[in-house]
Amino acid sequence: MDKQLIKSLAQVVGEQYTLADRESLACYGYDSTPELESRPGVVVLPGNQEEIGKVLALCHGAGVRVTPRGSGTNLSGGSISFDGGVILQTSRLNRIIEIDEENLTATVEPGVVTSALHREVEAKGLFYPPDPGSMNISTMGGNVAENSGGLRGLKYGVTADYVMGLKTFLADGELLKTGGKVVKDVAGYNLNQLLVSSEGTLGVFSEITVKLIPKPQCKKTMLVHFPQLEQAALTVSQIIAARIIPATLEFLDRVTIKCVEDYAHVGLPLDVDAVLLIEVDGHPAVVEEEAAGIRAICERQGCSFFQTAATADEALKLATARRVALSALARLRPTTILEDATVPRSAIAPMVKLIQETARKYDLTIGTFGHAGDGNLHPTCLTDERNRDEIERAHRAFAEIFEATIAMGGTITGEHGVGVAKKKYLPLLVGNAGLRVMRGIKGALDPNGILNPGKIF
Amino acid sequence: MDKQLIKSLAQVVGEQYTLADRESLACYGYDSTPELESRPGVVVLPGNQEEIGKVLALCHGAGVRVTPRGSGTNLSGGSISFDGGVILQTSRLNRIIEIDEENLTATVEPGVVTSALHREVEAKGLFYPPDPGSMNISTMGGNVAENSGGLRGLKYGVTADYVMGLKTFLADGELLKTGGKVVKDVAGYNLNQLLVSSEGTLGVFSEITVKLIPKPQCKKTMLVHFPQLEQAALTVSQIIAARIIPATLEFLDRVTIKCVEDYAHVGLPLDVDAVLLIEVDGHPAVVEEEAAGIRAICERQGCSFFQTAATADEALKLATARRVALSALARLRPTTILEDATVPRSAIAPMVKLIQETARKYDLTIGTFGHAGDGNLHPTCLTDERNRDEIERAHRAFAEIFEATIAMGGTITGEHGVGVAKKKYLPLLVGNAGLRVMRGIKGALDPNGILNPGKIF
Repeated sequence: MDKQLIKSLAQVVGEQYTLADRESLACYGYDSTPELESRPGVVVLPGNQEEIGKVLALCHGAGVRVTPRGSGTNLSGGSISFDGGVILQTSRLNRIIEIDEENLTATVEPGVVTSALHREVEAKGLFYPPDPGSMNISTMGGNVAENSGGLRGLKYGVTADYVMGLKTFLADGELLKTGGKVVKDVAGYNLNQLLVSSEGTLGVFSEITVKLIPKPQCKKTMLVHFPQLEQAALTVSQIIAARIIPATLEFLDRVTIKCVEDYAHVGLPLDVDAVLLIEVDGHPAVVEEEAAGIRAICERQGCSFFQTAATADEALKLATARRVALSALARLRPTTILEDATVPRSAIAPMVKLIQETARKYDLTIGTFGHAGDGNLHPTCLTDERNRDEIERAHRAFAEIFEATIAMGGTITGEHGVGVAKKKYLPLLVGNAGLRVMRGIKGALDPNGILNPGKIF
Repeated sequence: MDKQLIKSLAQVVGEQYTLADRESLACYGYDSTPELESRPGVVVLPGNQEEIGKVLALCHGAGVRVTPRGSGTNLSGGSISFDGGVILQTSRLNRIIEIDEENLTATVEPGVVTSALHREVEAKGLFYPPDPGSMNISTMGGNVAENSGGLRGLKYGVTADYVMGLKTFLADGELLKTGGKVVKDVAGYNLNQLLVSSEGTLGVFSEITVKLIPKPQCKKTMLVHFPQLEQAALTVSQIIAARIIPATLEFLDRVTIKCVEDYAHVGLPLDVDAVLLIEVDGHPAVVEEEAAGIRAICERQGCSFFQTAATADEALKLATARRVALSALARLRPTTILEDATVPRSAIAPMVKLIQETARKYDLTIGTFGHAGDGNLHPTCLTDERNRDEIERAHRAFAEIFEATIAMGGTITGEHGVGVAKKKYLPLLVGNAGLRVMRGIKGALDPNGILNPGKIF
């Protein structure tokens, strides 16, 4: 990294927020994606929104590449700089600028932690539904860049459904304002939604305005065991067919159940194929009816156990089984490959079976859990990156799983992004026309290709 | 129009679906936008999806411009060919291809009429919420291209919120598939949402997959009179502050009330400043509570009349006051300029006042009605395009209204599109950076500029 550029960057953000020592560069050299590591040339932490623009203008002028980064919880290598470029770290920009109770919006800086926003708005009787698994550390900037999902996606949608306005610094440092507090806006192309899920390749957010909704009055949490996988899958279909849309409809398979029980001792049985965690929320009368409807469907499908949480504490305990799934699986082996193949929800049962068969075929341990109501599964391979033979088999297995996902009308990533980890599968999904259009857009917005280069395509 | 090209087009879609006679060209020379007319060179009506691609490939090769068109209900001149080009008329592509009850999706061709889709899905207990004013004639292709809103936008959102998958023919005739039936998909840029509201400038839709939701179990319709405008505006704010999100929260001002009463004799008073039409829907218990809450707020604000529809017929009658507003205003003078300035909902009262003051200043009759809950107003100027002086004053008045809208954090168009009618206001709203990015995207997707040229920017 050019010493003069580092000096210029330090003049913008300050010496103490320009990190170029070995230890710092090592810390920013990886994110939550396994098998990937690469040290940046320098890390800068802007202290206000304008500094983002100044950093970009400098790098654009110098032809130096920039990777924006929040908390580094990215699961597709999106927050790693692979070319010794600049990491633009947003964590100092962590102000909740406004909660507008009249227009039901919140405006935040990109470094605000997702669950901090949850707490602030819920204290006012409002609700920001997106709740990615990493919400206690992930930032809003990262959530918007990746279009993060979460456990409440089935009823409430994902981050994209809540983004109303953005301030974004383009590659050359020019500020672009899109959307705002109006709930209807069709003036020109929908750049807001183009920027959401662009994975830091089209611009760097400096301000985000999201929609809020009234907080649901109450909720009911249910945990259900099924001896057979098909019973759980049919239950999911029949709940939707009964015109009930739960807030949460989560699934754990046998491998995951065993790991969770070993880890958290929440009383899960070891002889069932599937567990569903179901939450309904809203008006008390609706919650009662929907919970009763769900119980009837589960029993008709032959569930072996049905528990409704009697208290909020008990609800938390039931939800623990799902919330700890990843940690429970991750402790079994040194390397955890967490994927997010997503299919139309009607294809959940064949998809889980295919994952299990593929695991057997390649002699791998794959636990599957995830958002059954969304068709968004997390097949999680437990392996060891030092075992090259096993890692190779894992890659071959996931290649087959993604091909099958696409054949079922699904997608290679429901909520984790393409980054570098899924690049090779994207052409299969979007075809030549899709790639051509995406490359054209990237070229139009970032002609010098300095923004998070090498990601997506 | 080149005779050889017309012959080639006729070979693709058939002689009888290639219209080049004077009468046909006159019929396709205007849409629902006042003051605009221009005859195309030829009109083609493809009979299947592939023919769209073939028509585009021919025109792309010949460098001839193409304007896609549904029912011509466009309000910004978007479906008029201003350069004697080709009108690509989608009305023969009117199949509802599938209603998938398991995945809660409907897949349609672009020529399907919006209300026809409503009827089909509601017969299955499902619901497609977007209900633009023109829904009995407008097509789904047009709705997606314009991101149409409607009366249920406050609670249910607009067309964009329901588009899950698109098949789109690009300018050169290549087919682009985006999205599908998965409810979570972050594989690459969100081209789906870029194409929604692109007003026919980026591609021509051949297939549209939309999300469906369960049909609300019941609804309650209320009509409320307010002596003072501020009372109505405060009522809107306080309903939202009470965390009630009605499906519909519509407003009529004094000018509109008088016109509606003269036209439809629905019993509206002539001495009030504002009428609100409010609908809540959902579970019976929720509907009861929300309706009671709304009544209390209206009474606290000093409404002079509050009526709840006792039957479905009565509800239809109450809604008539709002549904006929445009027709009632339009019969007063030969030319109706219907705008869709949109502000954050907290700015509804100052916005209505500003419109009324501007009307007085320029000696114009402007009736205002619209979606108060969305901040999406329809100031409607009643004029006569033969009176050039008055038309000039109308244009000056709207220029001031749009400037004020932008100053209040609003937008120049909430649901009607930019087309040619709003082009001159767009730079004011999106700035240089916004225009630069939009032009870059247009250049990337349609390098020869053949798709609906001259629209948006």
